[in-house]
Amino acid sequence: MKKLIYPNSADLIEALQRPELNSIDLESLVKEIFDTVKSKGDKGVREYVQQFEQLDVTSLKVSREEMQEAAQNISEELKKAIETAAKNIQTFHEAQKETVQKIETMPGVTCWRKSVGIEKVGLYIPGGTAPLFSTVLMLGIPANIAGCKRLVICTPCGKDGKVHSAILFAAQFIGITEIYKVGGIQAIAALSVGTESIPKVYKIFGPGNQYVTAAKQYAQKLGLAIDMPAGPSEVMVIADKTSNSVFIAADLLSQAEHGADSQVVLVSTDKEMVEQIESEIKVQLEVLPRKEFATKSLENSSAIVVQQAEILSIINEYAPEHLILQTDFNMELLDGIINAGSVFIGAYTPESAGDYASGTNHTLPTNGYAKQYSGVSLDSFVKKITFQEITKEGIQNLGETIELMAEAEGLDAHKNAVTVRLNSIK
Amino acid sequence: MKKLIYPNSADLIEALQRPELNSIDLESLVKEIFDTVKSKGDKGVREYVQQFEQLDVTSLKVSREEMQEAAQNISEELKKAIETAAKNIQTFHEAQKETVQKIETMPGVTCWRKSVGIEKVGLYIPGGTAPLFSTVLMLGIPANIAGCKRLVICTPCGKDGKVHSAILFAAQFIGITEIYKVGGIQAIAALSVGTESIPKVYKIFGPGNQYVTAAKQYAQKLGLAIDMPAGPSEVMVIADKTSNSVFIAADLLSQAEHGADSQVVLVSTDKEMVEQIESEIKVQLEVLPRKEFATKSLENSSAIVVQQAEILSIINEYAPEHLILQTDFNMELLDGIINAGSVFIGAYTPESAGDYASGTNHTLPTNGYAKQYSGVSLDSFVKKITFQEITKEGIQNLGETIELMAEAEGLDAHKNAVTVRLNSIK
Repeated sequence: MKKLIYPNSADLIEALQRPELNSIDLESLVKEIFDTVKSKGDKGVREYVQQFEQLDVTSLKVSREEMQEAAQNISEELKKAIETAAKNIQTFHEAQKETVQKIETMPGVTCWRKSVGIEKVGLYIPGGTAPLFSTVLMLGIPANIAGCKRLVICTPCGKDGKVHSAILFAAQFIGITEIYKVGGIQAIAALSVGTESIPKVYKIFGPGNQYVTAAKQYAQKLGLAIDMPAGPSEVMVIADKTSNSVFIAADLLSQAEHGADSQVVLVSTDKEMVEQIESEIKVQLEVLPRKEFATKSLENSSAIVVQQAEILSIINEYAPEHLILQTDFNMELLDGIINAGSVFIGAYTPESAGDYASGTNHTLPTNGYAKQYSGVSLDSFVKKITFQEITKEGIQNLGETIELMAEAEGLDAHKNAVTVRLNSIK
Repeated sequence: MKKLIYPNSADLIEALQRPELNSIDLESLVKEIFDTVKSKGDKGVREYVQQFEQLDVTSLKVSREEMQEAAQNISEELKKAIETAAKNIQTFHEAQKETVQKIETMPGVTCWRKSVGIEKVGLYIPGGTAPLFSTVLMLGIPANIAGCKRLVICTPCGKDGKVHSAILFAAQFIGITEIYKVGGIQAIAALSVGTESIPKVYKIFGPGNQYVTAAKQYAQKLGLAIDMPAGPSEVMVIADKTSNSVFIAADLLSQAEHGADSQVVLVSTDKEMVEQIESEIKVQLEVLPRKEFATKSLENSSAIVVQQAEILSIINEYAPEHLILQTDFNMELLDGIINAGSVFIGAYTPESAGDYASGTNHTLPTNGYAKQYSGVSLDSFVKKITFQEITKEGIQNLGETIELMAEAEGLDAHKNAVTVRLNSIK
């Protein structure tokens, strides 16, 4: 970790810069794959799976037998853990439901809005170095609560030609049975244009590598919605002399192990605490299976010692995906936090609680996008339709206002739609 | 209007097709302008205003004197109308505020979320054939309620080198005083990258032509958020033999006058009603100042006679931006509507009420995007940050669940962040 002790503002700004995102232009490759999937359908998808994953997938859809087999591969302990996590995620997202509230904005003018689930949604679950079955819960549970009618998962097989059992178990646990064995650009293409077996959906969710990200951007160009733009995962930890260096070292490493491009920023009001955390990191790092990822990630990361008064502006300027507060002045910070994805308060609140099981969503804005984006929530799976009903009395109250404004905008037919009604009442 | 009487499903699907959006590739032009604005700042912006609008804008920012002068140009009647509309919009959007609700998902595990206004937002207000001051209210009022700290308007001048008085009045009426005289791609570029005078914002709202749309798409690629993808405005009207043909003709024309590419679809269970509406359109069209736009738009539009049972699937397949229900079975339709932007119920509820003054937002998803997008609302101007606080008891309750899941995903450092805490409690 680079260490900055009471840096000046220029050095501070530089330390909080995120590395440039890999900007290889993948659009021509993405377009080619989308076009092929559109023209050749399932056959096109299978050819790409063959080409990119060296797998011969005769049937794209996971069969009922494969689902049943998966359930048998999962320990009872893990099943129970998934059940507990699912329950908490359900509870937290269920509370986000809105009741319809009719508002009479003026006498005879009643307006309301209603949340309706997006009919067809695609959930992309990466395979790769970690089988992210937790993401199945984080996306599938709010989609169910929202009332989405068709939930489709695409996920790549492992080298054995099978989807990871935990992914299949988590999916069926929450009632998702439509799962296709395809990953990468071809998965996003199939969800965007539709094939004989894979339906065209309206919105695509889920994390992925740069290929998946480029494909989601292209899908957005075609008019599909996506959850949010993607970037490497990151955490900012705020510490002081009262922090527990063992806990914080563990939190920093849990972020760093995601990948070499993960970002870790430690901000402390106490220099000794930084040193204790650094030496604790060395100890804990030694026994980590993903030591290599974590080491690389830590090389790009910073530890900054600052005055307490500077902390809020550092948080809001960096806009961290995950923000851990482990100081004796946590409560003084809360109201001033404007830009962050998810905030973890106090010594016994590790980020991994939110990653898996406390109930909050783990799909969060990275790369500073917390300045303008929220994490995934129930909102992400609904559209809110507005309704209005105006009585004769209402149009008499409101009519002239509309006429005057329409006229001033030069839109006479808009005005006339009111005039004909007012005339009919006279 | 093309007329279809009890069409078969193939003809129906064709009639509900939207025209292909103009897909001129503007990206290289957009990139050039963004790059120039980034390197040359205000000077670059002024050069483009000169080049594209033949206007010499020495100062980009609207001055206090111009604001004051604008207020004097507005009639008291129109001021009163703007005040009434603003009050209704305020009332409807104010009701969308969410109170913080702390959820204890399991003993000792407390999660909540808080809405925070996006700090800096840019509102694009087109000039062009209609000075859309109503859009200033529709975007500015929810931005204020959300607590956005810096609201910036960009809008092109008219040929006289001035911003339309009604736009300036509406802006200052709701407290927006930072307005720049620039439209088109260069406006979106300035809001995206920032110049000496125009701040870089985090999210850009507002309608615009294909140049503005292409620029907003490009801004999105750079990581900014935008309100929603754009397309031509449209209305679907549902009629039966009880409808008022004069009202419906006026509603169809109020949509058609927007532009030659506006879409109008009339769906009726009664053939005679369609004929009455058609002849009424001819009468009303004659006196419209924007007759030419409306005539062209109607040429691309359809009137369809169907059985009542087919109506819901037609609505949901088309996913209209505006949906007007003027039948004696309106209430039977409401629950089944899944895809629509805003719904207008009953004879005395013209679309223009929602365009201006009833309180609902008029920035709505077009082009079928109502399948996956909501209209603009208070939600559009906030991010929802999640928070969690776990006690010793909480991590004891939840810890094993997290450990098991992290281990199964192969993320040992995630597991360890819990283990070190559990060990410390033992």
